[in-house]
Amino acid sequence: MAPGDLGRRLEGLFSGRARAVQRSELAALFALAERPDVISFAGGFPDPAWFLPECEEVAARLLREARGSALQYGPTPGLTAFREYVAERCRRQGMEVAPAEVVVTSGALQGLDLVAKVFLEPGDPVVVECPTYLGAIQTLSTYEARLVEVPGDEVGLVPEALDETLRDLERSGRPAKFVYVVPSFQNPTGLTLPLDRRRSLLEVASRHGLPVVEDHAYAELRYDGEPVPSLKALDREGLVILLGTFSKIFSPGLRLGWTVAPAAVTEKIILFKQGTDQCSSTLGQMMALEYGRLGLIERQIAVTTAGLREKKRLTLEVLDRRFGPLVRRTEPEGGFYTWLTLPEGVDTARMLERAVRDHRVAYVAGPAFYVGRRGSSQLRLCYSLLPGGLIDEGVRRLRECYEAESAGAR
Amino acid sequence: MAPGDLGRRLEGLFSGRARAVQRSELAALFALAERPDVISFAGGFPDPAWFLPECEEVAARLLREARGSALQYGPTPGLTAFREYVAERCRRQGMEVAPAEVVVTSGALQGLDLVAKVFLEPGDPVVVECPTYLGAIQTLSTYEARLVEVPGDEVGLVPEALDETLRDLERSGRPAKFVYVVPSFQNPTGLTLPLDRRRSLLEVASRHGLPVVEDHAYAELRYDGEPVPSLKALDREGLVILLGTFSKIFSPGLRLGWTVAPAAVTEKIILFKQGTDQCSSTLGQMMALEYGRLGLIERQIAVTTAGLREKKRLTLEVLDRRFGPLVRRTEPEGGFYTWLTLPEGVDTARMLERAVRDHRVAYVAGPAFYVGRRGSSQLRLCYSLLPGGLIDEGVRRLRECYEAESAGAR
Repeated sequence: MAPGDLGRRLEGLFSGRARAVQRSELAALFALAERPDVISFAGGFPDPAWFLPECEEVAARLLREARGSALQYGPTPGLTAFREYVAERCRRQGMEVAPAEVVVTSGALQGLDLVAKVFLEPGDPVVVECPTYLGAIQTLSTYEARLVEVPGDEVGLVPEALDETLRDLERSGRPAKFVYVVPSFQNPTGLTLPLDRRRSLLEVASRHGLPVVEDHAYAELRYDGEPVPSLKALDREGLVILLGTFSKIFSPGLRLGWTVAPAAVTEKIILFKQGTDQCSSTLGQMMALEYGRLGLIERQIAVTTAGLREKKRLTLEVLDRRFGPLVRRTEPEGGFYTWLTLPEGVDTARMLERAVRDHRVAYVAGPAFYVGRRGSSQLRLCYSLLPGGLIDEGVRRLRECYEAESAGAR
Repeated sequence: MAPGDLGRRLEGLFSGRARAVQRSELAALFALAERPDVISFAGGFPDPAWFLPECEEVAARLLREARGSALQYGPTPGLTAFREYVAERCRRQGMEVAPAEVVVTSGALQGLDLVAKVFLEPGDPVVVECPTYLGAIQTLSTYEARLVEVPGDEVGLVPEALDETLRDLERSGRPAKFVYVVPSFQNPTGLTLPLDRRRSLLEVASRHGLPVVEDHAYAELRYDGEPVPSLKALDREGLVILLGTFSKIFSPGLRLGWTVAPAAVTEKIILFKQGTDQCSSTLGQMMALEYGRLGLIERQIAVTTAGLREKKRLTLEVLDRRFGPLVRRTEPEGGFYTWLTLPEGVDTARMLERAVRDHRVAYVAGPAFYVGRRGSSQLRLCYSLLPGGLIDEGVRRLRECYEAESAGAR
């Protein structure tokens, strides 16, 4: 066969999901972040300055004293001691979690992938916030889910709208399989769902018998305002499935997350994880556990939140100074992101090309976070990675780019 | 809701694949391996004595000098330098591989999972050897594939039988999507497909335009006999998709594998990996790369093959001494396994219960490696993990157990 024939032959064998999946914004932005001359507000990366130097000694000691286990396969659900540690951390955050309910995953997104595998048939409705995490849109799309957006307002998801959406789906004969939410320091908006909304959301879910998949990725990174309990902490019915990660509080490069789910779901998650990657990094689990024992996770969280507080302050200040009333922005109390709404008529997806090419600044355009590709005048700024000086310069470039784009559009 | 109601409610929402998946032999045997009083020939674990002490210094140096990258997210297809290294290793083994064709995965099984995601719709036929790797059976079952076994003989897969199977499937109107094979030091048989069979297999695949998924997991662990080129090295059409791993030559605990596939397939693999676990461990990739640069991978392979040669010799000698003509066994030239056929009437799956309970010895019963649950008098012995003394004692216990079982069956 000629090479072109081979490509066509192989494509002819592809599954429906492979035909449907398209090159994603997420992949593109990871690529952008690699270009050294671009100031990137795109990827949700922690500042590497927050990684503690103690990691060297911790890893060295484990590989010296326990090499045989640290480099060996581990049990599929995770090392027993590490599952206990994750459960204990959850309990410290007010959640009732038993070690047997914990499955260690390769990042929180794998948790969502496994939950999707447990629940979804092609065409099954899954309810999501609007806007929502673009990685979740991508993962759920792999299962050919029908993503149904629930309208939000300036504080986030509106429980009454969720109720209505669920009732519509029930009436249509194809009820939702679960709702996926990021209630704390949401990705992309940075918003945190207030306590009363969390309670109402759980009431609605309970009324419909609907599992709630709670993405807890940023929840421990509060730097302003008062703590709000997680949905899992408020859950009395057992309907909440928690997706956690060590990516933002320890290291994304070790790929460590976890799920907490009812026994029936956990059993299936373990079986599917077995068939996917068998287990998550043993060395990674042992490093995180040792960090935890030494109090280093809590120290890194303190360093991270202090850093984020300062970066957020600076980002919002520079945004206000450079854009003034031209831009509406959220006021996050934790996490990595602020969400901007530019004047109507600006197309942030189109502007991104100009931004990277002419102004060497990057962000994620709004439509990536909507199922229906709305949000054309919106964008997500991630301020976690950049040092202060670059935040200032990056926002300056963004304003410059906005001027050029507006002039071009006129 | 009462807890029982919750379980029933959740199970009512499960996908077909979640309803179908059952607790696997693999999970059970990983659990067995954790019991300290059992001599386990079950799990395919490398001997931790083969892990080199240099890992401490390598990890420490990386975390000292490049902490910011080692703990950070990496690109989804893998670090560029690491993809280049994998491609270079493949080229040294006679395969034409470009770095852009390499995707770093979290173990070889994730490679198979991603390939399955690219190709399989429920009910799609996938052709496998008979017996075949139980992990592959499990992963492919997750996609509700119809696994079709091709009969083998004492050297492995018979190309003419493959041809016939493929023609039958074509006539049925539902042709196979791909064939999955472990041509070198097969799991579970330990057999290596001879060169002429490899050539014929590729001819058959070419005639049918069928992708060949080659599991290369053990291929570098030859300790006897003459090297045979991989299918990928013999492939002139580009139909071979290679699944590789660092689990048997470096560390299973870091979860590092790779796929090599034609461009059209690689593009989809990357997109699906993005939605599954985003990237594989950055620290792991950097450690493996540094090991490679320092010649430590090749040194570990030398240590491993020397160890395996000795363990195989001992295992076969003890088997012959204790069982004599009662057992037929394969004679592996590489890898971790020998495959035993006991006298007809012995039920190795039933015997396993007795073995663990009364004789504190474990193996994997034959039926786990067959789609149709045949192989009831067969079993897989893995000799890679155990020290010599325990191999001797383990086979003694196995013989004792066999005696008790035969007496009980009488």
